[in-house]
Amino acid sequence: MTDVRPPCAVRWLDGSGCVHRKRGASARVPGCLDIIDQARLPDELVRLHLSAPREIHDAIRRLSVRGAPAIGCAAALGLAACAQRFGVSDATDYLVKLRATADYLDSARPTAVNLHWALARCLAKVVPASIPEMDARLLDEALDILDEDIRMCDAIGGHGLGLLRTGMGVLTHCNAGALATGGCGTALAPIYAAHAAGYDIKVFSNETRPLLQGARLTAWELSECGIDVTTICDSMAAQVMREGRIHIVIVGADRVAANGDTANKIGTYPLAISAKYHGVPFYVAMPYSTIDRSLPDGAGIPIEQRPDCEIAHCRGARVYNPAFDVTPRALITGYITERGVLDHV
Amino acid sequence: MTDVRPPCAVRWLDGSGCVHRKRGASARVPGCLDIIDQARLPDELVRLHLSAPREIHDAIRRLSVRGAPAIGCAAALGLAACAQRFGVSDATDYLVKLRATADYLDSARPTAVNLHWALARCLAKVVPASIPEMDARLLDEALDILDEDIRMCDAIGGHGLGLLRTGMGVLTHCNAGALATGGCGTALAPIYAAHAAGYDIKVFSNETRPLLQGARLTAWELSECGIDVTTICDSMAAQVMREGRIHIVIVGADRVAANGDTANKIGTYPLAISAKYHGVPFYVAMPYSTIDRSLPDGAGIPIEQRPDCEIAHCRGARVYNPAFDVTPRALITGYITERGVLDHV
Repeated sequence: MTDVRPPCAVRWLDGSGCVHRKRGASARVPGCLDIIDQARLPDELVRLHLSAPREIHDAIRRLSVRGAPAIGCAAALGLAACAQRFGVSDATDYLVKLRATADYLDSARPTAVNLHWALARCLAKVVPASIPEMDARLLDEALDILDEDIRMCDAIGGHGLGLLRTGMGVLTHCNAGALATGGCGTALAPIYAAHAAGYDIKVFSNETRPLLQGARLTAWELSECGIDVTTICDSMAAQVMREGRIHIVIVGADRVAANGDTANKIGTYPLAISAKYHGVPFYVAMPYSTIDRSLPDGAGIPIEQRPDCEIAHCRGARVYNPAFDVTPRALITGYITERGVLDHV
Repeated sequence: MTDVRPPCAVRWLDGSGCVHRKRGASARVPGCLDIIDQARLPDELVRLHLSAPREIHDAIRRLSVRGAPAIGCAAALGLAACAQRFGVSDATDYLVKLRATADYLDSARPTAVNLHWALARCLAKVVPASIPEMDARLLDEALDILDEDIRMCDAIGGHGLGLLRTGMGVLTHCNAGALATGGCGTALAPIYAAHAAGYDIKVFSNETRPLLQGARLTAWELSECGIDVTTICDSMAAQVMREGRIHIVIVGADRVAANGDTANKIGTYPLAISAKYHGVPFYVAMPYSTIDRSLPDGAGIPIEQRPDCEIAHCRGARVYNPAFDVTPRALITGYITERGVLDHV
């Protein structure tokens, strides 16, 4: 299967089964949140149609939908789907149920900033009115969140395209692609843009231990679009650079401090060190909102420690399992955002 | 279980069930090769007692015994065990069978240089004589190979000890330990020496994708001896260095070129780059015989490509799976050999 359009991780299915990714869907017949079950990729491609609070909560919790922007979009659309089924006739009852449902969905992943942000934004939009009107407002707001995300990804792709030339080898880490957003991704957006423009691009995807998002998700979504992608172990990136096959590194970001220091999936930092050693440009692609001006530098970014069982093979040995590392600003060539490619943030 | 002595990957069990690791075992009652089945580590510790050519061949082929020095020792002792069961009374018949058995064992792993070397050395030692005398010579030669390996490891450990201080954090990659040799290893030998000397050493062991020799073998053998060992993903080493917890890196070597460029398990090279970036000394521990003077530099070292299935998670994507990388001499602080710690080779 080859298709130039990247897979849609998150979309809206209206009551008559039509797909929507923009404001304007009818809320008269209840619709549902439609996501790719990423926990089952790449073995099988299954789309889930969700409209019950418990189903949506579980899908977020067990990583059927993942990636900060994708989680935000899914939560907003999921809340709209739930509200359409409240079965109440009183506006006050509706608002009480809405708040309770939003709180419940928000608890699915306590540290996911976009989850909280998207739900709060939807809640703020709903003022007492008729039930159909509240349903419609909620859905429009959720579809606005999705559409803004799609446009943000496209803008990152357009700006990042200027850094690519046909024949280039691009290295990426983890999954900052279509599966992580409502659109075509952040780090992968310039690659999709280059592919659409007919460039011959060869992508190397780090498998990304311990959870293998690169091997499972990035390799899947790029190959589904007919993009040439090669999976390597994280420890092989330096060798591939040495062979002269990498011309640019593009990664995503979880948080960027005011000075440009960047927290991203563990393994990003050694990649940046190797890129510097080999003279390969190293870019971070992210929404401008990823910049956290309250943090002067990367030292203040807390590093989440994850469970031993993701790595352990031997009972006697300890395990150290940080989920992120911080790449210092000095190793970063630039930042690809929806506002353009920036030398500094 | 804590024991300061590292586990014996390879040893000789004589006809009365006594363990030997030095010349002098009786060959009158047939004995056997005794190895740890590394394919089952760390889930279970099973020792295999092998005396039939087919068993020994299979044990080498399916990596029950691995690591160049350990394979050499196992093949030599295995050949002695087979010969003790030839059941022939004529010296010529014995020598014909011996040569055929050696050829068969040699075919278990075609690229294992030590396998061929150890078998050839044993064959060269057996001249026509009485059957008991040939049996005895063969066993003595095999035990000499084992004993030399043990002493080589001890010498590397002794020299490497001078680089360590109590309280240090040591990072290693893959398994260049007791399981890879007849003795206490190469890269791990200084760690065992330091532990025996009462030093408090904290070891970080890269899990070593794709085959996880670090997570499965290094973590097992060190923790069995009561040494503090922490398994990390290969991509976490730079983060641990940044945290100031690594004071020295020690790795093994598959081949060292005349200029000091070193081929070792994939993932060694980025470790050396990160060590340089963080100002952490980077040492290669290996028998002096690992230096291949016929190669002027690392460019001439062929890089074995291994099967896709070790990495692949997604059918559409390609896989690149080099088994080794080459670390340039400029990134190496020194070489720990049985002749001492060398600045250059």
